[in-house]
Amino acid sequence: MSDYPITSRNEVKRLPKRAVYDRDTVHRIIDEALVCHVGFVQDQQPLVIPTLHARRGETLFLHGAKRSRLIEHVRAGNAVCAAFTLLDGIVLARSAFHHSVNYRSVVLFGRGNPVEGDEDKLRALEAIVEHVAKGRWHEARRPNRKELDATAVVAIEIEAASAKVRSGPPVDDEEDYQLPVWAGVLPLALRPQSPIADPRLPPSLHLPDYLADYMGRGFRPPKE
Amino acid sequence: MSDYPITSRNEVKRLPKRAVYDRDTVHRIIDEALVCHVGFVQDQQPLVIPTLHARRGETLFLHGAKRSRLIEHVRAGNAVCAAFTLLDGIVLARSAFHHSVNYRSVVLFGRGNPVEGDEDKLRALEAIVEHVAKGRWHEARRPNRKELDATAVVAIEIEAASAKVRSGPPVDDEEDYQLPVWAGVLPLALRPQSPIADPRLPPSLHLPDYLADYMGRGFRPPKE
Repeated sequence: MSDYPITSRNEVKRLPKRAVYDRDTVHRIIDEALVCHVGFVQDQQPLVIPTLHARRGETLFLHGAKRSRLIEHVRAGNAVCAAFTLLDGIVLARSAFHHSVNYRSVVLFGRGNPVEGDEDKLRALEAIVEHVAKGRWHEARRPNRKELDATAVVAIEIEAASAKVRSGPPVDDEEDYQLPVWAGVLPLALRPQSPIADPRLPPSLHLPDYLADYMGRGFRPPKE
Repeated sequence: MSDYPITSRNEVKRLPKRAVYDRDTVHRIIDEALVCHVGFVQDQQPLVIPTLHARRGETLFLHGAKRSRLIEHVRAGNAVCAAFTLLDGIVLARSAFHHSVNYRSVVLFGRGNPVEGDEDKLRALEAIVEHVAKGRWHEARRPNRKELDATAVVAIEIEAASAKVRSGPPVDDEEDYQLPVWAGVLPLALRPQSPIADPRLPPSLHLPDYLADYMGRGFRPPKE
């Protein structure tokens, strides 16, 4: 897949060697992140709000209550920035200065449009539910008229994006390698724990395979 | 501890029953989050950047290279919003509409000031390193003159803040409880995995206790 064009908006200026512009890497980070942080401007004031999302091609879907500040703002077509951050580990160097974290992050820019028709809305909501738990949309009760009317969906076309990735061991100053300080990486991972059944669940209802699978392979939101 | 005053800036408008304004809850979420997402405005364009942080009292410290966009912007005293999000689980309801996530999040507002003197800078950097790995500052080589000069530190006084917390099982519509759909919570946790020693580490250097402790108790950044 091609790269996102590098412009003043998405150019990574700090530590440019960590920058990645190829669409495939950017998409994979967006898809693995369970939430994103959406930034917008209201009365000169920057606001950052965490929310669930889903991606289809170059479109990011968000949803929310009809009158949420975030959704109203995005629906109106204002400029939006969204950040996706995966923490992969703590990098413990011999010097305080070279401490770091291993991470994969994406920052993207775009403008939103309301998703209006029932069909399109349902498809976007399906994408969001399936992003959180693949297989779930086909088991849960679908939205009814009232629920669909209460839910607003917005689509943000990705105009510009870049990823930033750090991996691997610490990089110390040459003379520090002799210091008697343990150095390396403490990997971190967002992992599912044992499922907790709803107190009102009949005991005859067992954990579905798609959730049991999560448990076996660790948590990875599904790819498109 | 007292509450943050509720103003138009920090009032939680969506799902106000999830809102928490008490300082202790807000502080604990900030301290447990390993990274935050900082939002600011540059040429009308909202920007969101993930970064490490530390809190002391009502002050949030960030650091970065002298010429980073984020740091330059905060140093200049512009309005800043920072979000901290802890994901605790996926809430699987019987209806698609009532799906959710369990989370603890904070959004705060403030303005930054540069931290200039060597002593103050070192104290802030110590707070950031100790936030990532408690005990580390006392083992790693401290910043030298050149490193200290290359690092910019900013302090943001928290002017307003609010937390939002969801926990517990799904809440379904009464008539949906009879549906044959598994419902409950899939808890999520950011957990340390086995440490990876730096390839250049002499085998005689063993993992320090403060990192081994992380492994036993799961990952929790230290409290103040």
